[in-house]
Amino acid sequence: MNATAPRPTPASSYAPLQNDTFIRACLRQATEHTPVWLMRQAGRYLPEYRATRALAGSFMGLATNTDYATEVTLQPLERYPLDAAILFSDILTVPDAMGLGLSFALGEGPKFAHPVRDEAAVAQLAVPDMDKLRYVFDAVTSIRRALNGRVPLIGFSGSPWTLACYMVEGAGSDDYRLVKTMMYSRPDLMHRMLQINADAVAAYLNAQIEAGAQAVMIFDSWGGVLADGAFQQFSLAYTARVLAQLKRSHDGVTIPRIVFTKGGGLWLQQMAELDCEVLGLDWTVNLAQARALVGHSKALQGNIDPNVLFANPTQITDQVRQVLDSFGAPHAGAGQGPTHIFNLGHGISQHTPPDHVAALVAAVHSHSRNLRSGR
Amino acid sequence: MNATAPRPTPASSYAPLQNDTFIRACLRQATEHTPVWLMRQAGRYLPEYRATRALAGSFMGLATNTDYATEVTLQPLERYPLDAAILFSDILTVPDAMGLGLSFALGEGPKFAHPVRDEAAVAQLAVPDMDKLRYVFDAVTSIRRALNGRVPLIGFSGSPWTLACYMVEGAGSDDYRLVKTMMYSRPDLMHRMLQINADAVAAYLNAQIEAGAQAVMIFDSWGGVLADGAFQQFSLAYTARVLAQLKRSHDGVTIPRIVFTKGGGLWLQQMAELDCEVLGLDWTVNLAQARALVGHSKALQGNIDPNVLFANPTQITDQVRQVLDSFGAPHAGAGQGPTHIFNLGHGISQHTPPDHVAALVAAVHSHSRNLRSGR
Repeated sequence: MNATAPRPTPASSYAPLQNDTFIRACLRQATEHTPVWLMRQAGRYLPEYRATRALAGSFMGLATNTDYATEVTLQPLERYPLDAAILFSDILTVPDAMGLGLSFALGEGPKFAHPVRDEAAVAQLAVPDMDKLRYVFDAVTSIRRALNGRVPLIGFSGSPWTLACYMVEGAGSDDYRLVKTMMYSRPDLMHRMLQINADAVAAYLNAQIEAGAQAVMIFDSWGGVLADGAFQQFSLAYTARVLAQLKRSHDGVTIPRIVFTKGGGLWLQQMAELDCEVLGLDWTVNLAQARALVGHSKALQGNIDPNVLFANPTQITDQVRQVLDSFGAPHAGAGQGPTHIFNLGHGISQHTPPDHVAALVAAVHSHSRNLRSGR
Repeated sequence: MNATAPRPTPASSYAPLQNDTFIRACLRQATEHTPVWLMRQAGRYLPEYRATRALAGSFMGLATNTDYATEVTLQPLERYPLDAAILFSDILTVPDAMGLGLSFALGEGPKFAHPVRDEAAVAQLAVPDMDKLRYVFDAVTSIRRALNGRVPLIGFSGSPWTLACYMVEGAGSDDYRLVKTMMYSRPDLMHRMLQINADAVAAYLNAQIEAGAQAVMIFDSWGGVLADGAFQQFSLAYTARVLAQLKRSHDGVTIPRIVFTKGGGLWLQQMAELDCEVLGLDWTVNLAQARALVGHSKALQGNIDPNVLFANPTQITDQVRQVLDSFGAPHAGAGQGPTHIFNLGHGISQHTPPDHVAALVAAVHSHSRNLRSGR
């Protein structure tokens, strides 16, 4: 084993999983409590994260350094009994590897030096050499090793549509004017870009799986900005194209696949047809209704409003109970049945008080045990 | 009649309505074509608007001057055969009249000098003296007179929740952290603010009706950022409180009431219970599904993506047809039945080419006539 450049390792050589609650819930198998992890759980709300980031100098400095990425991925697990870890990285690594020049200005969101806005720029796009993303796969292997079987490690990518939004806009947007202008006026270019993105995302996630990721999640953060009709054509179809290419298992172990479309609650019935194990939901969705629509085919993940974490711990506990109760009693017997993975409906805010997160995690574990014992 | 300070006028003294298509569609009566108007149709995408705004010096300079407000309200009607006019004003006039100090910095959104962030600030809130909003009612009367019966005039306000978002945040927000912190941690304060807002909005809309508005619309622009459960408690309940206080008619003429919650598609069944005539929809909603859910109780308004207007006129025409077709054949006989009012799913972008709007309006009129003749 080369310590400076970790290489993919057979699953059998890693320590066995001590807490497989998250994986079992993904596969719709009974668990003793509802597993919980938080989108962006390794992040700026943690003082230890801010300290490491200061050492790294920049966000990409953190993400591209195996030791730093490993360190910050594990930080929230030291504080809270979370049931899964998620790779510390960014959803935009793939277009960066395509040569678009990703950077994060201080206090601002991501930015691309070379946005894709015309036919010539689209013509130059191609699935990147996965070697350019080696730093991500190295981080996955390093984190998996550091976790030492404590909890499973989730890999992830942005969805083809969400990547396209950033690739065309060049940055975040509040109206998606540029990307939608291309979509409505040059659908041929948009489809070409989305095909390339889908194939790149599939190769990227498969490489994460080979490097040690035990589940993968596709973040369709901007699917919800699309019109009905356009969503199916320009987001859902390309998420399906990714899923069709993903490895179902690695070294004989099933790799659950999670799809999260923020603002996608209106399309749940169509998303229920996706070839994946879990659907992520934001806070606008009623879990009982979602369970009735898709609960028989997929596990559900979500969906508390991250702003609940600004209330006091007693109020947080009460809101956690409401979310758990809205899903209802989870599957408790043998075989498969409805399961719930607790999460936020969006990434945690950088302003969140860390002790409030402790209250949330404790409430999920204790109330979900009570639900199972009929209390 | 005092020309410098117009005063409410009995409906009978205005010219009779020459084009009542919009009003009939609101009341679920048959029309020869689907009426169309556009949210923010009087606005920055029009060079004549920018010229008037330059004369007025500022947005509030425009909105508070009766002559300017009248002029810009009528500008889009000179260009396009729209089926309704909407008062030129802002959704935040009510909290401004409460003393919060509204301003619009150049190139930025609205801002309040005195946001409402604690118990003391909430305790000072009260329904404002409607005389402080006299400039709005004067504009309504002046516009109604200038329209001279061409098309009906729509009055409007922000919803209690949407006003509260701006009142607490002090400006636009991308996470609604401050207003949701108050909502989750001090629901008592939030309910008090929302009660005051609801009573103020009701008084404000009733005064617009008395001044000459022939329909009124409540813009719940930020209802969609709420969690399921919170939406019903903090937005929908207070929209209902406004509706319960609104005048049903004025001078013997029915005044249709429209409610538009952006991002509210998941709650359509609950919104169908509102005591109003029309529900506005954004582009994420499938009109056929919406019609199946609420079409028997209310007219539907919407819902094309404003970004469609950046495609070319042929593509715009095609997208307009798809939206009209998704609603399906409108009611054509006597009595009441399903009706559709064409609109955008959100305000028109300032970057829109004006001739593209002409293509949209023409396509709505011609294709909706074809739909009625079975072509």
